Amino acid sequence: MSIKITGSGSYIPGNIEKNSGFHNHEFLNTDGSYIESTNDVIVKKFEAITGIIERRYVDAHLTASDIGAFAAEKAIGHANIDPETLDYIITAHNFGDVKHQTIQSDILPGLAARIKHTLRIKNPKCVAYDILFGCPGWVEGVIQAQAFIKAGMAKKCLVIGTETLSRVVDKHDRDSMIFSDGAGATVIEATDEKDSGILAHETASFTYDEAYYLHFGKSNNTRLDPDTRYIKMHGRKIYEFALTQVPKAMKTCLDNSGVDIKDVKKIFIHQANEKMDEAIIKRFYRLYKTPEPKDVTPMSIHTLGNSSVATIPTLFDLVKRNKLKNHTLTTGDVIIFASVGAGMHINAMVYRY
Amino acid sequence: MSIKITGSGSYIPGNIEKNSGFHNHEFLNTDGSYIESTNDVIVKKFEAITGIIERRYVDAHLTASDIGAFAAEKAIGHANIDPETLDYIITAHNFGDVKHQTIQSDILPGLAARIKHTLRIKNPKCVAYDILFGCPGWVEGVIQAQAFIKAGMAKKCLVIGTETLSRVVDKHDRDSMIFSDGAGATVIEATDEKDSGILAHETASFTYDEAYYLHFGKSNNTRLDPDTRYIKMHGRKIYEFALTQVPKAMKTCLDNSGVDIKDVKKIFIHQANEKMDEAIIKRFYRLYKTPEPKDVTPMSIHTLGNSSVATIPTLFDLVKRNKLKNHTLTTGDVIIFASVGAGMHINAMVYRY
Repeated sequence: MSIKITGSGSYIPGNIEKNSGFHNHEFLNTDGSYIESTNDVIVKKFEAITGIIERRYVDAHLTASDIGAFAAEKAIGHANIDPETLDYIITAHNFGDVKHQTIQSDILPGLAARIKHTLRIKNPKCVAYDILFGCPGWVEGVIQAQAFIKAGMAKKCLVIGTETLSRVVDKHDRDSMIFSDGAGATVIEATDEKDSGILAHETASFTYDEAYYLHFGKSNNTRLDPDTRYIKMHGRKIYEFALTQVPKAMKTCLDNSGVDIKDVKKIFIHQANEKMDEAIIKRFYRLYKTPEPKDVTPMSIHTLGNSSVATIPTLFDLVKRNKLKNHTLTTGDVIIFASVGAGMHINAMVYRY
Repeated sequence: MSIKITGSGSYIPGNIEKNSGFHNHEFLNTDGSYIESTNDVIVKKFEAITGIIERRYVDAHLTASDIGAFAAEKAIGHANIDPETLDYIITAHNFGDVKHQTIQSDILPGLAARIKHTLRIKNPKCVAYDILFGCPGWVEGVIQAQAFIKAGMAKKCLVIGTETLSRVVDKHDRDSMIFSDGAGATVIEATDEKDSGILAHETASFTYDEAYYLHFGKSNNTRLDPDTRYIKMHGRKIYEFALTQVPKAMKTCLDNSGVDIKDVKKIFIHQANEKMDEAIIKRFYRLYKTPEPKDVTPMSIHTLGNSSVATIPTLFDLVKRNKLKNHTLTTGDVIIFASVGAGMHINAMVYRY
């Protein structure tokens, strides 16, 4: 038995927010003081480090569960399965449904239940639950789907990552430029193939010192209500943490899979910061004393920003559909999925396409 | 191999809110109109149906993750395990951490990560994630722990249910009297025993018509901001749904376990409404054409109200510690756990103590 991704879909929101859209923002330091640079300089510096040129925001009338359902519908269609045969709908997110111009997370009912409702699936045996696991939530959802299949509790699972980070950003925080909206979904099935699909996985939760590196906190604008909170990050700490821990987790995973580093065709890494991703991949190859191959890392960050749990399934879907230049997948290719995010959680999965 | 609960703990908040505490509330209908009864009549009627006399609220400085950690610490102590050997910390809740006198859910990072941080567990291999699954979240967390153990991905899991519903109630809604705060936790382990622990489980998600029976909605007080939302329920619909579907799910589960109805010693059912629970148990026994035994259903609702995911693990912990009159557990006893809640989700588990 192999556990494979038999269908994928993604939803890329229609509204493009370019970096120039931030030129009139009032950016402040965390203590509320003004930043001693012009917005032009701030935005240019941001672009140079993160690689982000533009990001996507959902329409005002849409929420995370809406776009999650859009992506799910495509994945179900692509897998060519009857949605009534799904055993699980696993939905990863970080903030639930947040309506336009509000800041309150709505997670009652959970997003998986909402998406199942929208998909008009009747079968009550299709268990719809939400997982909160930071940006690595979608990868972890796939790992959980694998567990249910291995335990004999499921044959077909739909795993969705959906997020509308545009609704929880602090406009006075430069980091707000990183965040984006999107949804990605995949159908995971047990197949009769051998030595294919998920070959190994690795998960780690670093909470001792790192639990609050990403957190919900007050606006940098001290005139605003301190009880209204927004997504906040300690960027420098996250950067150093990711560089130390992500390559190690990826190596543990690859070593457990038994696959040679030279046989890795593509690495689908969470897109939060281009420079950080480049450094992680460089360090990963350095652990094997192997040069990094050309075009091993498909990147979507330039135009899609960081859409958290939606990033990796969307990136995978784009490559699968030949929508990303210089990146294709052929049956038998070994790929690695790797993510890091709030918690701080890290995970990786070695997969034979 | 058997998969067993090897330790349990609960946290019952110190603040008792008696029904008399609601006598000065301004209760309104959903359209904002006044209810044509005195508060004395409203509260008496409420008490007669739900059986709730008082409920517990957490101290102002505490959140759901704080009390989840208190319960977890007790469960770890009771199981007598080194917390560093835990493979998973699974935390069920519905609203995350909501600070006193605010209404914004804080789920970044997830509560499992916060609890692991508070417990000072260092081992990064201990995976800490949150599950959102309505009131049945704790039972579902145990079912997921079982999957990880069966799939060879875990040996020891900590499953927590924690909730501070007092922070998300609409004071103008009579249903606010139902909700309570609390936390319960259990350690789940693979043991060498045979035919013990979890014998069968059953889960169902009814989302086609039922997804929004419990939802987040505006206050009954039309003068308040309609974008600020609170826990809301369609009580009558939930009642009818639960009476139809919960006994069926329990029967499927018991039949799958191979245990005779006559051998069921106790049923730990989610505590949301005494009359509803009595009717569910009655219907369950009617499906077997068997008279309902005396003292089969331990009840905590009279003094603890409905603390959602915390209810069943707390009830189990109380009985295990002989804290509930006429209820004891002896090795070999078969018990059923059953829950229903937002989603709408239902689950059941047959367990040999």
